[in-house]
Amino acid sequence: MILSTLASHSSLQILHGAKMEGFRTAILSSQTRENFYRRFGFIDNFLVYKNEEEAINLLNSLQDAIFIPHGSLIEYVGIERVSKIKLPIFGNRNLFPWESNQVKKMKLLEMSNIKTPTRFERPEDVDRLVIVKLPGAKGGRGYFTARTKKEVKEGIKQLLDKKMIQNEDELIIQEYIIGIPMYFQFFYSPMLQRVELTGIDIRYETNVDGLRRLPGDIKADPTFVVAGNIPAVARESILPLAFEYAENFIKTTRNVVSPGVIGPFCLESIVTDQLDIIVFEFSGRIVAGTNIYVNGSPYSWLYWNEPMSVGRRIAREINLAIQKGKIEDVVT
Amino acid sequence: MILSTLASHSSLQILHGAKMEGFRTAILSSQTRENFYRRFGFIDNFLVYKNEEEAINLLNSLQDAIFIPHGSLIEYVGIERVSKIKLPIFGNRNLFPWESNQVKKMKLLEMSNIKTPTRFERPEDVDRLVIVKLPGAKGGRGYFTARTKKEVKEGIKQLLDKKMIQNEDELIIQEYIIGIPMYFQFFYSPMLQRVELTGIDIRYETNVDGLRRLPGDIKADPTFVVAGNIPAVARESILPLAFEYAENFIKTTRNVVSPGVIGPFCLESIVTDQLDIIVFEFSGRIVAGTNIYVNGSPYSWLYWNEPMSVGRRIAREINLAIQKGKIEDVVT
Amino acid sequence: MILSTLASHSSLQILHGAKMEGFRTAILSSQTRENFYRRFGFIDNFLVYKNEEEAINLLNSLQDAIFIPHGSLIEYVGIERVSKIKLPIFGNRNLFPWESNQVKKMKLLEMSNIKTPTRFERPEDVDRLVIVKLPGAKGGRGYFTARTKKEVKEGIKQLLDKKMIQNEDELIIQEYIIGIPMYFQFFYSPMLQRVELTGIDIRYETNVDGLRRLPGDIKADPTFVVAGNIPAVARESILPLAFEYAENFIKTTRNVVSPGVIGPFCLESIVTDQLDIIVFEFSGRIVAGTNIYVNGSPYSWLYWNEPMSVGRRIAREINLAIQKGKIEDVVT
Repeated sequence: MILSTLASHSSLQILHGAKMEGFRTAILSSQTRENFYRRFGFIDNFLVYKNEEEAINLLNSLQDAIFIPHGSLIEYVGIERVSKIKLPIFGNRNLFPWESNQVKKMKLLEMSNIKTPTRFERPEDVDRLVIVKLPGAKGGRGYFTARTKKEVKEGIKQLLDKKMIQNEDELIIQEYIIGIPMYFQFFYSPMLQRVELTGIDIRYETNVDGLRRLPGDIKADPTFVVAGNIPAVARESILPLAFEYAENFIKTTRNVVSPGVIGPFCLESIVTDQLDIIVFEFSGRIVAGTNIYVNGSPYSWLYWNEPMSVGRRIAREINLAIQKGKIEDVVT
Repeated sequence: MILSTLASHSSLQILHGAKMEGFRTAILSSQTRENFYRRFGFIDNFLVYKNEEEAINLLNSLQDAIFIPHGSLIEYVGIERVSKIKLPIFGNRNLFPWESNQVKKMKLLEMSNIKTPTRFERPEDVDRLVIVKLPGAKGGRGYFTARTKKEVKEGIKQLLDKKMIQNEDELIIQEYIIGIPMYFQFFYSPMLQRVELTGIDIRYETNVDGLRRLPGDIKADPTFVVAGNIPAVARESILPLAFEYAENFIKTTRNVVSPGVIGPFCLESIVTDQLDIIVFEFSGRIVAGTNIYVNGSPYSWLYWNEPMSVGRRIAREINLAIQKGKIEDVVT
Repeated sequence: MILSTLASHSSLQILHGAKMEGFRTAILSSQTRENFYRRFGFIDNFLVYKNEEEAINLLNSLQDAIFIPHGSLIEYVGIERVSKIKLPIFGNRNLFPWESNQVKKMKLLEMSNIKTPTRFERPEDVDRLVIVKLPGAKGGRGYFTARTKKEVKEGIKQLLDKKMIQNEDELIIQEYIIGIPMYFQFFYSPMLQRVELTGIDIRYETNVDGLRRLPGDIKADPTFVVAGNIPAVARESILPLAFEYAENFIKTTRNVVSPGVIGPFCLESIVTDQLDIIVFEFSGRIVAGTNIYVNGSPYSWLYWNEPMSVGRRIAREINLAIQKGKIEDVVT
C-alpha cells in the first residue's frame, strides 16, 4: 500500500514515517519543488503537477493508496478541489469545511466546554485588546492586534485595500489573551481507543519574535507569520486539563462532524498566569509544529519506546487498522 | 523493588525511567488526578488519597519501596508531613528544610564560592533593581521586580493583603542580574563518584514570556509563573565554571548537610554578557526542566549511549547501588 | 587513526562522534581546561599546552591523525599559527583567511546569488538601521546597533577606546534586517556528493534575550554575546530556498577557494515576514549550534536512521573516504 501526501508543510515527516512503517510512499509536488524533495531517500513516487487541476487527477490515478492531509492542503489546492480527491483520506475529511470557517471552528471548541477568548461579532463591539485573524491557515499573514474599534476598522480597511480579504465577514475578532502560547499536539487513535499527547511546541513567528532584539526606542509593527517552531514541555500539573479538553473535543466532533476527529489534532492555546488554558484555535490534522519531533517528543517516548514522529504514528495507525481489518475506521 | 513518587511535577518521567530500569512503579495521587495518570502504561500501582494525611499513611504501607521526591512534594504535602515518610527516600532528605528557607538556601551557595546576587536584608537597604521572591517552590507565583525601596514595600504590602505570605521575613530580596537565564541540571552519583551534567533548560514563564508579543505601547505587568520549559545548550567554554560550581556545592553540602547532595540537583543561573555565571537559587532534587529530556539530553548522550532521562538516571543509580550492596549510600 | 580537535566550542561533540565511529581521539587543551575534559570517557589522548606556540608543536607530533577545526580555532590560536598545523585538516583550510575577513566573507555570499543585507563602506553612508560587527568569531562581543551616522561613529569610537579593535576598517556595517534569526546548518559530503541539512538553531544571546523580562520602563543596552543555542525547525516551504543557497555557496567556493567547502558550514540568516531568507554571515566549519543535536536533529533523522551529530557526521565522512581510498578528498 502507498501512503501519499502533498509536498509541503510536514510531508517530509509524513513520508519518512510511512517508510519506517514499511509503506511505499508517493509525493504530489509542483514542478518548482520537485528538485528539493528528490534530495530525500524515502520518497518512492513523484507525482509532479503543473497546476492544481492536474494535481487532483494525478492523485486519483494512484492505486491502493491513502492520502494524508496536512495544514497546507486547503491553502494550496482549495477546498473545492480537495473534495474531488477520490483516494481514501486518513482522518475525517468532513472536518475540512469546519476548519476553513473561523466562526464554525470556534463553535466546535465552545461546544466542547473548552475555554476560548471572547469573540466580537462586529468591530463596533470591541471593548478591549483584540487580535484580528484571517480565514484559513495562512500562517498568520495579515493578523493584527488592536485596542479600539477604530484600530480594528483601520486594520480591516488595510486588508481590504491589499485584497488580502474579500469582505470583513471572513475575519474573526478575538479577545487577546495575555499569557504564553502553547500548542498541544494530540493524536486520537480509534485502534487503541485512546488519545495521546504527541508533543508541545511554540511557534516561531516573524517578525514578532525578532523585535525584542531591537533597541527599545526603535519601533516596528509586529507581524505574526509562522516561519518555524520551537520545542517545549508543559508543567505536568496543567496536563490533566489539556487532556480533558482533548477528550471533550473528540466527543463533540463525534457528535457533530461524524465520524469525529481521527489521528492528529492540535489545541492552540494560551496559558495564563493562573495556569488556565485558553484555546484560541484548533487544527484538525497534523500541524507543522510536529516537525520538531521526527525522532519522537518528550511525550511520545512515554507511550512508545521507539522513535515515533506524528508522521510515523499515522502510518502505525494505518498498520494497526490493516491488521484488524478495520481500515474504514481511520479513513473517510 | 518498587519506585514510587507523588503524582505531579516530573512523576511521569520518574516512573517511566523506573520501568525502563526494570522496577515496579507506584504513584501517590489525589483523586482528581488519578484518571490522568491512568493514561500511561508504565504505572503499576495507584495509591489514591483523599487528603494529605492519608497520603503519608498510604505511602508508608508500601513494602520494599523507595520514594523519589521532586519539587512539588513539600509544596503539596507540607514539610512536616514529609518528615513522617518512613520509606527510604532517594537523595538527602536533610536538604528539605534548607530548601524551604530562602536565606539558608542562599547561604549554601555562598559557602560554595558560587557567585550569587547581592541579597538585601530589609526593603530599606535596596539601592538597585531587585526581584522579590516568595519561599518554597511556588513556581514563581507572586514574584515581582522593583527598583526602589518604595516599590519593594508596596509589593510586599500587596502580597500580605492577598495572604500570599504571612510576614515579610519569608521573602528574599535579591539584586536583579541582567543576563540570560540558564538552568544547569546536574546529577551527583555516589556509585560512579562523579557529577554529570544531565541537561540545561530555560523556564517558559507566563505571562512574561508572552509580553514581548504585545504591541510596544500596550503595558501589562510581568508575572513569572513557570508553565513549561524550553531546551538549550551552553557555549562549551562556560561549562568548566558550571562544573566547578557543581563540585563546590557537592562538597559544601557534604560538610554542612550530611551526607550531602545525592542524585539530581540544579543550579539556577543567569549568564551575564561577561560570560559569568551568577546562581540565584538551587534545587536539591529533580527539577521539572528535566521533563524536556525524556529521551536523553545533548549532554546525557555524552555519558550514556542510550536514552537516559534524569528519571531513568535515578533508577539506574539505585540499580547500581543494589548491585554493589550499597543502597544506604543513595537513600536517607 | 586519531581524530583530534581543540578543547572548546564543539569539541565534546566532535570527539564523542569520532569515538562512535570507531576512531581514537585526542584533545588539544590548555592546562586550565584539562580537568574539565577529563570528565568524559571518550577522549583517549590529552595534549596539554602551556601556550599557543607549544599547542601547534604538540599537535604536529601526532602520528596518523586528522585535525578537526571549529569556530574557536582561529580565535584562540591565531590564523598565523593555524597555518603551521602540519596535520591534515578536515575540510578546506583555504577558507580560513576568507572567514577572518568580514568583507571577503560577504563577497562569497554575494557571488553565490544569496540575498545579503546592504553593506555600508563608511559610517557616512549609513541611511537606515544598521548593526556594526567586529571581525572574527568573537561570539558577538562588541556588536552594536545604530540608526544614524552619528550613532555609528560614536559606537566605533567606544570600540577603539576599549581597544576592542585596532582601526575601523576591521568592522562591517550591515543593514539591520527585521525578522527572526535562523541558522541553517549544512554538511557538504564529497563522498555522497550531496548537501544535507543537519539542523537549525537560534542563538541564545546575553543580555539581549534576557531584556524582555525586564519591566517595560527599565532600560538597559542590549548586548549580543552568544552564550548558548536553542533548537528550532523551519516551515517546510522555506527549505527549498535554503538548499538553493547552500548549493550556490558550494559551487562558488569550489570556483573561488579551491577545493571548495567540505563538510559542515552554516548560513546565518534572518527570515523576514515575506518568508525571504537574508544571509548576514556564514561559517565554513562546524558551528556551536550543532551542540544541541548530539543525538541527531529533526533533519538528520530524515537522512540517517541512527543518531547522527555533526561531530559523528564528520567522522562518518572520514570513514567513507578511507573506505573509498579518497581521504585526500576530505582533508587539506
